[in-house]
Amino acid sequence: MGGDRGPAAVVAGLGLSAAKNPDVAFILHGNAAELAPLIARHAGLADRVTVVHADRVVEMTDKPSQVMRHGEGTSMWAAIDSVKSGQAQAAVSCGNTGALMAVAMIRLRKVAGVNRPAIACLWPSRNPGGFNVMLDVGAGIEAEAEDLLQFATMGAAYARIGLALSRPRIGLLNVGTEEHKGRAELKQAHDRMTEAAEAGGFDFVGFVEGGDIPSDRVDVIVTDGFTGNIALKTGEGTAKLISELLREAFGAGLLSKFAALLALNSLKRLQKRIDPRRVNGGVFLGLNGTVVKSHGSADDTGVAAAIGLAIQLARTGFVERLAARVASTGRKPMATAETALVAMGDRHQS
Amino acid sequence: MGGDRGPAAVVAGLGLSAAKNPDVAFILHGNAAELAPLIARHAGLADRVTVVHADRVVEMTDKPSQVMRHGEGTSMWAAIDSVKSGQAQAAVSCGNTGALMAVAMIRLRKVAGVNRPAIACLWPSRNPGGFNVMLDVGAGIEAEAEDLLQFATMGAAYARIGLALSRPRIGLLNVGTEEHKGRAELKQAHDRMTEAAEAGGFDFVGFVEGGDIPSDRVDVIVTDGFTGNIALKTGEGTAKLISELLREAFGAGLLSKFAALLALNSLKRLQKRIDPRRVNGGVFLGLNGTVVKSHGSADDTGVAAAIGLAIQLARTGFVERLAARVASTGRKPMATAETALVAMGDRHQS
Repeated sequence: MGGDRGPAAVVAGLGLSAAKNPDVAFILHGNAAELAPLIARHAGLADRVTVVHADRVVEMTDKPSQVMRHGEGTSMWAAIDSVKSGQAQAAVSCGNTGALMAVAMIRLRKVAGVNRPAIACLWPSRNPGGFNVMLDVGAGIEAEAEDLLQFATMGAAYARIGLALSRPRIGLLNVGTEEHKGRAELKQAHDRMTEAAEAGGFDFVGFVEGGDIPSDRVDVIVTDGFTGNIALKTGEGTAKLISELLREAFGAGLLSKFAALLALNSLKRLQKRIDPRRVNGGVFLGLNGTVVKSHGSADDTGVAAAIGLAIQLARTGFVERLAARVASTGRKPMATAETALVAMGDRHQS
Repeated sequence: MGGDRGPAAVVAGLGLSAAKNPDVAFILHGNAAELAPLIARHAGLADRVTVVHADRVVEMTDKPSQVMRHGEGTSMWAAIDSVKSGQAQAAVSCGNTGALMAVAMIRLRKVAGVNRPAIACLWPSRNPGGFNVMLDVGAGIEAEAEDLLQFATMGAAYARIGLALSRPRIGLLNVGTEEHKGRAELKQAHDRMTEAAEAGGFDFVGFVEGGDIPSDRVDVIVTDGFTGNIALKTGEGTAKLISELLREAFGAGLLSKFAALLALNSLKRLQKRIDPRRVNGGVFLGLNGTVVKSHGSADDTGVAAAIGLAIQLARTGFVERLAARVASTGRKPMATAETALVAMGDRHQS
């Protein structure tokens, strides 16, 4: 029911995904009366979707702490619970990120050994696979050295499955690559990652800068949720501005229009490569269950991409493999889910 | 003498700038023997440039605290001193940012009422003028609420001159636009900016996100130096990736090459608009003197852009106008330059 475009975009994306994945079944949580006509628009979709009615909806402006306490009965809560009960193998939402993380943490609980969950996203890059992983892009708004180390372990696990890399290269995002630069926790994390690389099954390339995020120097970029969220949205905003200017450039004058027509295939390939809708989907890492957060502004293509990612993660048993990896790198005892949630409070972001 | 391309790129940029600004004289600080043949390459340049020999050079890897203590006799130190003595109206450097800020702070001193200087950059945007201002992009690595408020005042002063806006719109960078989101110092800064907008001569639009940096919602984006530096480099990296992919797209196949030829003018216009070299130059705000930091990787076009910005600021009496604005918004008594420098220590970044 969430997202900037409401349930119509979600159901349209579901339609695309259902057509592409004939062996997948869907459970749709929300207002049944509102959803039924949307489902009916897509031929054959009704047979593939079980609608579970929910009276209430989490709004984009709801505070995570409120939803955590009083969110039972909302479609978001029910979607997470369907993963908890094993009815669903993964949950996808376009709604309020902070609330989704709060509900997911309290219902699914954190994987043993994980202190702070993270949201990982894919970023178009110069690497052969075409993408890098960045985390945290918005589960929290800060991270200590030990949290950053866990992000490295979890990010490496995600890159192993999502990007099929046996030994991902991890970089720690900083304002310079020299070891004396940056905040205190980054220097500590630098030392910890250097020590932990062997056991974690990754290569640590040291500090990387903003310009390295789309590069082939690194596969996984580790940062706190505040910085990661700003970087992600800055990159998206820059890409959007350039494509708008490009469209205008090709729209100006007959010759340019003719040129654009000739270059259509090249431009389409490029657009597909950098289109944020096609890499839509932030994966929640560190929880006992797969949750994918779609961009709130996602259209049908974007929603279908997020669902596709959830399907891929469910099929590869990602959560179990991540838990095994975290357990094998042996972390110190951590706070309970509740303490961490209270500490994070309302500072989650959507 | 600094920068990734060495003095050749600096002198070439100087050549471009000298040709464009016949009424400006230049002082070049560095190794005279190395500089003479470079200057001789550009017809007529020798008559416009006074070379001041310096035996020593600040390296990109030198720690700011070391340069601050032992930097006398370097070309960077001499360049800043020529502004202090009034010989020069502005200094431009492609060198080590942290060292440049440290030397500038200790030699030029902070404007009365300013606690933490900042570096401001221009960012291509959807606004009519084509650019937004963002600060701090790397003078420091953190900022308290009161520092962020000063950044707003200084950024507004810069936008008034640099973008010719009588009442700039200021936004505070955060992970969401709702007032309850983000770190504690951001909430405090939000309240302080709301109160101070009238006296500061700006409109406060509240929190903005990474995607708003290139938008027309805002003219000046305020953030701490860590986040600003990451955002700046992420934006540059994204733009660079897209232009590389674009070039590849147009290079693939005869038809695409022909199309690119037809679209050449449109593409050139676009490239000029988003070319980071043409908006090169971070301005140090809050010091008694104008200092412009050029990107370390700047070529002749980039260096010329940074010099052009310095000329514009010197001509408009920017430092005096900024000092008057800061004085009129009345800040509480601040620490001395030395205390702040010690506190910032080696954490400056280049």
